[in-house]
Amino acid sequence: MADEVVLLNCYGSLFGMRVSVALAEKAVKYENREEDLGNKSQLLLQTNPVYKKIPVLIHNGKPVSESLIIVQYIDEVWKDKAPLLPSDPYQRAQARFWADYIEKKLYDTRAKICTTKGEEQEAGKKEFIEILKVLEGVLGDEPYFMGERFGFLDIALIPLYSWFHAYETLGNFSIEAECPKLISWAKRCMQKESVSKSLADPKKVYEILVGVYNV
Amino acid sequence: MADEVVLLNCYGSLFGMRVSVALAEKAVKYENREEDLGNKSQLLLQTNPVYKKIPVLIHNGKPVSESLIIVQYIDEVWKDKAPLLPSDPYQRAQARFWADYIEKKLYDTRAKICTTKGEEQEAGKKEFIEILKVLEGVLGDEPYFMGERFGFLDIALIPLYSWFHAYETLGNFSIEAECPKLISWAKRCMQKESVSKSLADPKKVYEILVGVYNV
Repeated sequence: MADEVVLLNCYGSLFGMRVSVALAEKAVKYENREEDLGNKSQLLLQTNPVYKKIPVLIHNGKPVSESLIIVQYIDEVWKDKAPLLPSDPYQRAQARFWADYIEKKLYDTRAKICTTKGEEQEAGKKEFIEILKVLEGVLGDEPYFMGERFGFLDIALIPLYSWFHAYETLGNFSIEAECPKLISWAKRCMQKESVSKSLADPKKVYEILVGVYNV
Repeated sequence: MADEVVLLNCYGSLFGMRVSVALAEKAVKYENREEDLGNKSQLLLQTNPVYKKIPVLIHNGKPVSESLIIVQYIDEVWKDKAPLLPSDPYQRAQARFWADYIEKKLYDTRAKICTTKGEEQEAGKKEFIEILKVLEGVLGDEPYFMGERFGFLDIALIPLYSWFHAYETLGNFSIEAECPKLISWAKRCMQKESVSKSLADPKKVYEILVGVYNV
């Protein structure tokens, strides 16, 4: 029996894009269902009763939620193609540590760039760049985060690239000027079809953000 | 060459206890180094420069931090004994989801019980019990969280049991009256030597808490 794979998603979601990239890397066919977050479907409420958030991956009727957990699940189920986590336990722990760092550190600073002005916005931009510079240090001179191979940590971070244009426009700054290596990495990722076809259009993301924050 | 395993730890830490239980389950010999968190060692600052927090597991000179990541690392390195995560990808995703839920939900409510009085404290107790009841529902009628076998999710939660006495004393309430199945589970876990020898003494935890919060 063929796998039935459904992804509850929302256009532009950083977390949803992670799952889309992972599924594309594994060449898994799936149905993408766009959720209206102002009027969530019964299916979303039933399959993620704890957080009621996208993304939810429903695989043969069984739901998995939380994007990084979904990506690990995808890696473990479709294990014969394009491994996402490294095979070495220490490298796996490093990939998980930095993905968790992105989760904990990066998201709060973004709102400051988009919703504040003056000193507070400057502080948000500074903090955002500092975190990106830490990640740039982790990347080092490698093509991808854990070395030669595109994988879990690249997937954890790359969706943010589609939001850079919006942050740069609203914050009036250049991320590339501050983090050139990180932008080279992002462009390298974008050469992969799994990434380019999964990431949202930066101009649409900007329009969404302007709409949400009414800036 | 024998493995050199050092754990930077602090007595009573929920996160440190997780690692101690996991190492005990795997029968890994290690050196436990108590950190003075008011005067952190150079080793801690060097091995966890991002968060500067315990626990850090240093395995043959290589540091891993963040307790749930360390427990997964331990499970992957010493994989021949006492598997901690289930083998089935869906069960693994469930174990990771609920461990992450404990991480996100449970810790903030605890401070309210210990540091506030009156309505705010009552709200903290209510929220704490609600979260424990959700977890009790996940446990169901199984002996351990993922079924017959003690594992990752049990390890994620059981250290909290050593803090229950302090919360009950400071909050003047009974967790057992509200969540009897969860307490039965905790007592079952405590029958395992890996748990009983790794968990802190509830009376000492109470004294630590009274000292920290000056209540």
